Amino acid sequence: MKKKKMHFAQFVMHGPTYHSLAMWRHPETRRDLPWDRPELYQHIAKVCERGKLDMVFFADLSFISDAFQKSLAPALRCATQAPMHDPMPLLSWMGAVTDTIGLAATFSISHHHPFYAARVWASIDHLTRGRAAWNIVTSVNHNESNNYGEDALLEHDLRYDRAEEFMEVCKKLWNSWDEDAVRADREAGIFADPEKVHRLDHEGRFFRCRGPLTVTRSPQVGPALIQAGASPKGRAFAARHAEAIFAINHFAEGAADYYADIKNRMENEGRNPDHCKILFGVQPIIAKTETEARDKQALHNELVPDEGGLAILSSHMDYDLSKLELDDVMQPIALPGLQSMAEMYSRTAGKKLTLREVAKMHGESVSLPQFVGTSEQVADQLEAYFDTVGGDGFMLSATHSPGAIEEFVDLVIPELQKRGRFRTEYAGKTQREHLLQE
Amino acid sequence: MKKKKMHFAQFVMHGPTYHSLAMWRHPETRRDLPWDRPELYQHIAKVCERGKLDMVFFADLSFISDAFQKSLAPALRCATQAPMHDPMPLLSWMGAVTDTIGLAATFSISHHHPFYAARVWASIDHLTRGRAAWNIVTSVNHNESNNYGEDALLEHDLRYDRAEEFMEVCKKLWNSWDEDAVRADREAGIFADPEKVHRLDHEGRFFRCRGPLTVTRSPQVGPALIQAGASPKGRAFAARHAEAIFAINHFAEGAADYYADIKNRMENEGRNPDHCKILFGVQPIIAKTETEARDKQALHNELVPDEGGLAILSSHMDYDLSKLELDDVMQPIALPGLQSMAEMYSRTAGKKLTLREVAKMHGESVSLPQFVGTSEQVADQLEAYFDTVGGDGFMLSATHSPGAIEEFVDLVIPELQKRGRFRTEYAGKTQREHLLQE
Repeated sequence: MKKKKMHFAQFVMHGPTYHSLAMWRHPETRRDLPWDRPELYQHIAKVCERGKLDMVFFADLSFISDAFQKSLAPALRCATQAPMHDPMPLLSWMGAVTDTIGLAATFSISHHHPFYAARVWASIDHLTRGRAAWNIVTSVNHNESNNYGEDALLEHDLRYDRAEEFMEVCKKLWNSWDEDAVRADREAGIFADPEKVHRLDHEGRFFRCRGPLTVTRSPQVGPALIQAGASPKGRAFAARHAEAIFAINHFAEGAADYYADIKNRMENEGRNPDHCKILFGVQPIIAKTETEARDKQALHNELVPDEGGLAILSSHMDYDLSKLELDDVMQPIALPGLQSMAEMYSRTAGKKLTLREVAKMHGESVSLPQFVGTSEQVADQLEAYFDTVGGDGFMLSATHSPGAIEEFVDLVIPELQKRGRFRTEYAGKTQREHLLQE
Repeated sequence: MKKKKMHFAQFVMHGPTYHSLAMWRHPETRRDLPWDRPELYQHIAKVCERGKLDMVFFADLSFISDAFQKSLAPALRCATQAPMHDPMPLLSWMGAVTDTIGLAATFSISHHHPFYAARVWASIDHLTRGRAAWNIVTSVNHNESNNYGEDALLEHDLRYDRAEEFMEVCKKLWNSWDEDAVRADREAGIFADPEKVHRLDHEGRFFRCRGPLTVTRSPQVGPALIQAGASPKGRAFAARHAEAIFAINHFAEGAADYYADIKNRMENEGRNPDHCKILFGVQPIIAKTETEARDKQALHNELVPDEGGLAILSSHMDYDLSKLELDDVMQPIALPGLQSMAEMYSRTAGKKLTLREVAKMHGESVSLPQFVGTSEQVADQLEAYFDTVGGDGFMLSATHSPGAIEEFVDLVIPELQKRGRFRTEYAGKTQREHLLQE
């Protein structure tokens, strides 16, 4: 039987750390390609294109967390996903030096009208000749709401109802110019055929929009859509709209359940389950020998400060961990999220952990499994996870920049290609074509 | 006495026409560098940088006008500043292939929160190493309001009160990271000094914002600011904030009055009047001989369709001109804006015009004076206007793309340099330094 091939996205952020809080201070993180220069991201895009990856993917956050100790200080000192510059301008910088790789970014719909989002993304899809992908998120953090002057977050279900209508308006706008609307007949002096450009006159519960969009029909008719919903409403939204999903599951078993649920929901929506690729986050650590790789992992993990781990775990739990006892072995507690996080990391560590140790592990990879070893061993781990899950591929997150990305492309990708588990050429030129390539 | 030097910005839009509705169908407009490809704008940026211009400047509109005949058809057929793709991503494409030239774009504040605008612009200012400039506009068109689902435009004065507070929040955000806030001490594991990153806790009439910005202090501490206010409130706003103003005055006399008023207002605000450069729009048409230039002008102007002129003039007057008699010589009418427009074009034409003729002239250059002749003659006209106004420089708009821009840079710029009226080198590297260069 022909083995199913993997899809790969390279996870990045426009900041000094991603899932690894050690990244900015890692000795191999290059000082001459710093996180705030576009040249770094151009380099990464070229490396990932050389590796035939599906996309470079930017996560994004519009706040600095004060969840731990009700203070910004831990996040600022430890660069805990902060600062975080806007990733959108980087898609263009990267587009300017690449031809094929997909270019994806997170753009929250919480503070915008769909006309703006539809216009931005259609424009980028044009400029990149159909390489754009939009990770649709709704903002869920109080620190971000406070930056935008909002009293409270929209209630969860209402947030997804709004998101649903948001996407309805965007899709109408992307379709407001027919494929043959632009005639550009210089002699006759007719630029566009007015019969083929349409009003929306959308009047919904959350939005009104007259249209048409000011942007002609883009190569992908809007960008490819990415989502990362975990709740039932979020999964339903993803099953309806997403062409790729970024998911985190520390263990393959949990990933398999999630995977089956989404594919099942897609079938119920009448969609082909192959039309959404579910990519699971992993943090590869690769070296020539297993011992070297283990040393590399230890070096990396030691560089994560407790304070940073506590800051990011407090933010993710939306709970100030300074209120809890940090240095005793954790007792069962009434925060179910934290409890299952502690169990997960304890299982990986092979022992009971203190809360400080749990937080530190969270600062190492934010729940992503670390796949450690030689290129063959990392390929083995990817295959094992992939085949257990029945999955579609992985979102890779780096321990140092840009070396971790180069190592994966130069060492693991050829190994997977040799095993027939990854493409050796792009079949198409657009983001959607990469995601649909078998 | 040392002659004052001029400043130049190249006006562009991310669409098929700018001030000339003939541009998209002009025989010299290149088909191999179309308006919807980033390569065109990269080429323009490189040409303008070779010419040592202050900036490339994008205007922007988020609507297609139905002002004429209450129909989108005329604007669509004639490409009357439509379609109009988002210009913001192009700043990065241009930044990727240039080192020095300023990169300016229009970004309306009407549909956003200042946190978003401040973050986007600080990020672009970083990426371009201080070459960003933001043209601040508030939306004034009903077609745009309808796209954004707004019932009505904010009342004029209220719009400027909101704009004032918007800028206050942006400036606080750009200053929320001190200059030495980032320590990036890898050994000590201290990324930023928390004492040097500040909350805003802004609570105003229109906005609340907790802060800090997620973006470190940018090279220019936010972008250089551009404005184009004509009303008293708009002029007051410009006098307080603008480092460059784009103004349209068909005749130098009117421009002189406007210029004096703004500089006077700046002094009253306690600002150095040299710290805002007022650039007047012109449309140069250059050829080897005067006869050739006149022929080139005639060819260009003939390519403007009446229907396009009527569409854009209706939009600018916010009045459906199809209700008026188009082909009789215009009688005095009760629309003061249209009346003065008709008088202006009649004076230039040297005869009384019909409304259709007025509209057609509007479609040729949207009130910009056409400066026509050899490079010496165009330089003469620029000098005459400049010296009458006491002005700071010009915003250039093209008749064909990108040839008109190349002609100006290759023919008129050297002539002005020879006359000591334009810089031969950039003195600095940032947008603000270019604007302040003597």
